[in-house]
Amino acid sequence: MAIDPSRALGAILPAREASWGPDQMILYALGAGVGTDQDPTDPRVLQYTWEGELKALPTYAVIPVFETLLGLLDVPGMDFNPMMLLHGEQYTEILAPPLPVEARIVNEARIAGIHDKGAGKGALIVTDVTSRDAATGTALFRNEFTAFIRGEGGFARPGDPPAPAPGNEPPAREPDAVVTYPTLRQQALIYRLSGDRNPLHVDPSMAAIGGFERPILHGLCTFANVGRAAIDACADGNPERFRSIKVRFASPVYPGETIVVRLWRESSTDVLCTAHVQERDMKAVITNARVTLFE
Amino acid sequence: MAIDPSRALGAILPAREASWGPDQMILYALGAGVGTDQDPTDPRVLQYTWEGELKALPTYAVIPVFETLLGLLDVPGMDFNPMMLLHGEQYTEILAPPLPVEARIVNEARIAGIHDKGAGKGALIVTDVTSRDAATGTALFRNEFTAFIRGEGGFARPGDPPAPAPGNEPPAREPDAVVTYPTLRQQALIYRLSGDRNPLHVDPSMAAIGGFERPILHGLCTFANVGRAAIDACADGNPERFRSIKVRFASPVYPGETIVVRLWRESSTDVLCTAHVQERDMKAVITNARVTLFE
Repeated sequence: MAIDPSRALGAILPAREASWGPDQMILYALGAGVGTDQDPTDPRVLQYTWEGELKALPTYAVIPVFETLLGLLDVPGMDFNPMMLLHGEQYTEILAPPLPVEARIVNEARIAGIHDKGAGKGALIVTDVTSRDAATGTALFRNEFTAFIRGEGGFARPGDPPAPAPGNEPPAREPDAVVTYPTLRQQALIYRLSGDRNPLHVDPSMAAIGGFERPILHGLCTFANVGRAAIDACADGNPERFRSIKVRFASPVYPGETIVVRLWRESSTDVLCTAHVQERDMKAVITNARVTLFE
Repeated sequence: MAIDPSRALGAILPAREASWGPDQMILYALGAGVGTDQDPTDPRVLQYTWEGELKALPTYAVIPVFETLLGLLDVPGMDFNPMMLLHGEQYTEILAPPLPVEARIVNEARIAGIHDKGAGKGALIVTDVTSRDAATGTALFRNEFTAFIRGEGGFARPGDPPAPAPGNEPPAREPDAVVTYPTLRQQALIYRLSGDRNPLHVDPSMAAIGGFERPILHGLCTFANVGRAAIDACADGNPERFRSIKVRFASPVYPGETIVVRLWRESSTDVLCTAHVQERDMKAVITNARVTLFE
């Protein structure tokens, strides 16, 4: 097992098609937790859950790209145990707003970065995926997946630049807004219907093998709630103003816990965020997060 | 507008195909409320929500038949305003247990009963649907939908038998078991993804037109919980022992309310049931219900 940047960096992954419609969009929003402890006739609930007034919860843009990453293991110079892969950071950007509630896309992916975190530690692999409308070729959105591969470090040569710092540190002052979302005990059971069937999120024995006391919520479900919080607190609840999100995954949420999102407005379009779990002494689950908005 | 039993009774509706797989089964169970305030690692939750150990929540057998009823309005002698139709009673029976978690079926439907409830009152239309495996022809399950058509009574002739009484009255004694299921405020938003997109369950203005203060939960969602309660309380939680269910819909549940199911064991295979809403002075929502079990 080894990662060889000289062969893998810049590699193009096989293009993959994906598609979705209103039902997938609604199921995703309900899986993210939209509607929990909310009035079901609130327009901020119905806009995500009823085809009569449907808008995309824009963090959905990470979902139809997920399978593309399966191609990583077929890249020459990219030899690692997939059990050692952790989703470290995620960047998702809407290029042609708003994200459509129905589309067919082609995903174009390449390995955009490989960073050595040190021998015995691991490697960071950054995969950049641009998603285009399959009919028109218009670039609709872009994702950067940062995977941390445990145990695969130590390949850097003298003079190689260090891995970039995650950045997006919030200021020392109190946050400008705090948004609290309870999660359901069955949240992961709903969320996984949007595609990520990793048994870590449902099977107690797999959770134990992963070192968790019980099945964990999907990191990308928490990610969806950071995006939703920024839309609610900084964009008047209008998801069509959402431009991009960047997060670092610090620790998992257990289904049933309450996610507390803190938001600091840097400007009318930039928001720094963190997410913590209320029930466990405000343990950090997402850090170094930035959401940007269209004016 | 008029109903003419001499022309409509016995009419055969167009056969329709339907199919489902594990994802539809899981979504249905979550829409019914499985997992709410339950431990998500409880086998009684996972058996309905995880493809690794999946069993059908057997009341699902009503779902792939629902569209067949659209053919009712094309039957000669069956001329009525569909806005006046209420789902009055429902019978669902598993003929070849257990209900498969994946199947392709053909639905064969005929108008099995037309009963006059009196001029100015309405008519009862009973549609009998047998669902067969599309490949083998094996009869998998059977449904009887009883629709009440408001305002369409008065066609009976002297000597016609009266409409049958709903029956299944519970005894005067205390119930043998009481099962309580909370519903989510977004329960109807999840449930409707299983197919019944009537806006009465999501759109406040349509609910108002229907005479309700807010969108109501699907009667068949409450029905699913009566079936689930009988399985939990009288069949050790094993859905493969479920044989049939008959209910009368008395009144709707509002999403977020708590359904209280009372059960009286008549024998090792027969259970009489009712369902009430805890938050509204135990208002009856399902009455005259019977669940039967396989030994």
